Amino acid sequence: MKIEANNPQLKSWLKTDLSSDFPIQNIPFGVAMPPGKSPRVVSRIGDWVIDLLEAYELGFFEGMSISKSVFDNNYINELMALGKNKTRAVRNRISLFMLEDDTFMASKKSARFTYPVADCEMLMPVKVGDYTDFYSSEEHATNVGTMFRDPENALLPNWKHLPVGYHGRASSIVVSGTPIHRPTGQTIPPDSNTPVFGPCRLLDFELEMGFVVGGETRLGQRISAAEAEEYIFGLVLFNDWSARDIQKWEYVPLGPFLAKSFASTISPWIITLDALEPFRVAGPEQDPKVLPYLEYEGKKNYDIHLEVIIRTPNGDENVVCRSNFKYMYWNMTQQLAHHTVNGCNFKTGDMCASGTISGKSPDSYGSMLELSWKGTKPIKMSDGTERKFIQDGDTVILRGYGENEGVRIGFGEAEGKIYPALDME
Amino acid sequence: MKIEANNPQLKSWLKTDLSSDFPIQNIPFGVAMPPGKSPRVVSRIGDWVIDLLEAYELGFFEGMSISKSVFDNNYINELMALGKNKTRAVRNRISLFMLEDDTFMASKKSARFTYPVADCEMLMPVKVGDYTDFYSSEEHATNVGTMFRDPENALLPNWKHLPVGYHGRASSIVVSGTPIHRPTGQTIPPDSNTPVFGPCRLLDFELEMGFVVGGETRLGQRISAAEAEEYIFGLVLFNDWSARDIQKWEYVPLGPFLAKSFASTISPWIITLDALEPFRVAGPEQDPKVLPYLEYEGKKNYDIHLEVIIRTPNGDENVVCRSNFKYMYWNMTQQLAHHTVNGCNFKTGDMCASGTISGKSPDSYGSMLELSWKGTKPIKMSDGTERKFIQDGDTVILRGYGENEGVRIGFGEAEGKIYPALDME
Repeated sequence: MKIEANNPQLKSWLKTDLSSDFPIQNIPFGVAMPPGKSPRVVSRIGDWVIDLLEAYELGFFEGMSISKSVFDNNYINELMALGKNKTRAVRNRISLFMLEDDTFMASKKSARFTYPVADCEMLMPVKVGDYTDFYSSEEHATNVGTMFRDPENALLPNWKHLPVGYHGRASSIVVSGTPIHRPTGQTIPPDSNTPVFGPCRLLDFELEMGFVVGGETRLGQRISAAEAEEYIFGLVLFNDWSARDIQKWEYVPLGPFLAKSFASTISPWIITLDALEPFRVAGPEQDPKVLPYLEYEGKKNYDIHLEVIIRTPNGDENVVCRSNFKYMYWNMTQQLAHHTVNGCNFKTGDMCASGTISGKSPDSYGSMLELSWKGTKPIKMSDGTERKFIQDGDTVILRGYGENEGVRIGFGEAEGKIYPALDME
Repeated sequence: MKIEANNPQLKSWLKTDLSSDFPIQNIPFGVAMPPGKSPRVVSRIGDWVIDLLEAYELGFFEGMSISKSVFDNNYINELMALGKNKTRAVRNRISLFMLEDDTFMASKKSARFTYPVADCEMLMPVKVGDYTDFYSSEEHATNVGTMFRDPENALLPNWKHLPVGYHGRASSIVVSGTPIHRPTGQTIPPDSNTPVFGPCRLLDFELEMGFVVGGETRLGQRISAAEAEEYIFGLVLFNDWSARDIQKWEYVPLGPFLAKSFASTISPWIITLDALEPFRVAGPEQDPKVLPYLEYEGKKNYDIHLEVIIRTPNGDENVVCRSNFKYMYWNMTQQLAHHTVNGCNFKTGDMCASGTISGKSPDSYGSMLELSWKGTKPIKMSDGTERKFIQDGDTVILRGYGENEGVRIGFGEAEGKIYPALDME
C-alpha cells in the first residue's frame, strides 16, 4: 500500500525542523479552539495548527462530497465515520494544499487558516463510546505475575491463548494537560481485614498506546484479523493512571474498577494508521500457535519509540522508561478479532488500549510498579529525591515517535500533572 | 416527598385494567416509532403509547420552556438532562392531560397522539454512555462463591465493605425483542490446558435491574449517598446475558469480558424513580458497619417483584425464578457514592446494573447457574424437556412490578430469544 501523503520527499511551505513530531508526512487529526473561535477539527504541521474548517470554507476540499459538519465539530467522530477511503483522501488533500510547490493552492496560502499551536487549546479529539483495555505485553504481564503470584508460573494459563482485556471507563478519558487529582478510596492496611478510607498512596502511570475505531459493526458481526485495519483509524499515547493500593483491595473477583476509572490521559493528536505505515515490523513469534480466528498475515506491530518522563516540581524532566510499541505480544488486529468474535459490536469512537508496554530490560518497564519493583527499588530523580510511585506535584509525560528514511512521525505528548486529593468531606 | 402523578386516586380517560403495568400513576418514558412516523419520545398508559412529540405540537407542554427536540429525539437523554425538577414537572403534566376529568385538555382529547402499543416499534430508549455492572446481591455472590471457591468463605473479604462492580460493554445493550445469537469463543475442555473454539455451551441469563443516570458530574466530583437519588432518573429490567464457559476461561485476572459483551437486554420503558416512590422499603442491615461515605439514611431499597420466564419453542411460559429487588444488600445510592468516590465522572445516559438479584430460597435464584446449581439440578419445563442452561430457540423474559394501595407500577418485559451461533467462517 502506497499512501501519497507519506512520501518522504514531500516538503511543506510551513517549515519544520527534523526533530518535529509533525512533518507534512504526519497529518494527524485533532480538535482545537483557535483564538476566539469555536472548537473545530484541525491538523498540524510543525508548530502550526491547520484549521480544517477554515480550509473547508476556503474551498480546499472541493469536489470531495464532504459536508461542513465533518470539520465544524467538537469531535473527529464524523470524520472517522466517513470510512478509510474518504479519510485517506482527506489526508492526501491536506498534504496537497500544504505542499511547498503546490500551484493550485498557492494563491490562497496567505489566507488565515493556520495558528501557532501555542495559541490553541487542544480538546478531546474523540467522543469515546466504549473503551477496552488490553493486557498484551508479555513482559508486563510476566512482571505483574512474578510480583503478585508465582515467578514460576507468572503468566496465567489463558494469557498466550487470547489477548486478555477488560472494559474500562470511557467518561474519564481526558486530553493531555487535564489536571488529575489523586483519587481517594478504600485500601487495606497490611495485616488487616478492615479497609480504611483515604487518598491513594500508590499512584502509578501505565505507558500504553490506544487505537480509535472508525466504522460501525452490527451486533453479531465479527471483524477478522485480516479486515481489522480498515476499522483502526489511528493511535494515541495513553496513560492508564492506576491506583495500585485501591486496585489490590477491590479487584477480586471482577477486575479493576475505581483503581482505573478516575482518569486516563491521551495525547491530543490522532496519528492515522496510514501515517504509521513506514514503521510496520513483525511481531514476536506466538507459541503456542493461536486459534485460527487469531491468525494474521504480514507485519502488524509498529516500531514506535516510547518514553515516560516524570517532571518533578522543580521543572526537571527525568526519563524513567524507554520502551517500544513493537514489543506487544498481541497486535491490534488480533485484539479486534478477539473482541468481536462473540459478536460484540463496535461504534465509531470506541477506543482500545494496549495495556502497559514493557520491554525486557528493567529501564523499559512501563509503570512505576515494575520500575520500582513494588516500591523496593526507588528511582532517583535529578532533584535528589526518589520515587517509588507518583507524588503530588509530579507531571507524567508520555512521548512517542517512529523514525524511518529520515522522516519522523511523532505523537506529541500525553501529559498529566497530579494534584492533591480533593477535600474528602 | 409527594409527587402529584403518583396519587392512587387518579384515573385516565384511557382505560386500563388492574393488572396493567402502566396505569396513569406510572407514566414511564421510552422511544417508539409509531406507524409511519419517525422515532420520538413517548409515554404509555395501559396498552396505549402516548406520543409526546405530538402532544408537544398540540401545546400540552405550554409554559414549561421545553424545546421540541426533547421529544423529537431518538433517545430520552435530552429529556433526562433537564434535571429532576423539570422531568418531574413533565411527568406531572402528562398525568394532567391524561386525566379522566381534565377540562383544560378535554377539547383536544380526540387529537391523534395515542397509538395502540402493538402498532409501535419500541427502540432503545437511552443512548448509553458508560455502563457498570455491580454484584450487589449477597445471596448471588454467596452462591457463586460456594460453587466456585469455598462454601466456608463464599464471600471474598472485600464484599461487605464495598459494592463490588466492574465496567461493562455499553454498545451491546439492546432493547427487548432484539434477537440474540449464541456467542462463540474460547472455552477450556475439562482436564485440558488447551482451549477450543466454538459456540458457548453454558448460556445463561442474569436477572438484574438497571438504573439510568440523568445529570452530569465533573471529573473529581463525588455524588454522596444523600444526593444520589437526584441523579437516578429511572429503572429498567436488565438481562445480563452470560456465557459461563467463556467466562470461566477468560476472566482471570481482569474480570468478565467477552462472556458478557455479546449482549444485554433491557426493557423499553424507563420507570422513573418517582413512580417507584410507593415501594420504598428498608434494606438489609449492613454488618460490618460501612465506611462513612457509604452510610445512608431512610429507605433505599424497593419492593419490586421480579420473575424470569423461559418460553420454550412450543410457546409455553415457564416461570423459573421469582425474586425481588428489595433483596439487594447494596442499594443504588451506595453504588453511586462508591462509583464516584474516586472522582469518576458521570454523564447523562450512563447506566448501572445491580448484578444478579437472588433471594434466599432456591426458586428465587436469578440465573440458571444457580437455579440448576452448575447444571447438577436440571429444571423441568412444561413441554417435558429439561434445562440446565439456555437452549437455542428459548426466549427469556424478565418481568417486574411493585404493588401498593391497589396501584401496580410495572416494567413490562425484557425479552430476548436465543438463535443459533452465527456461521463461524
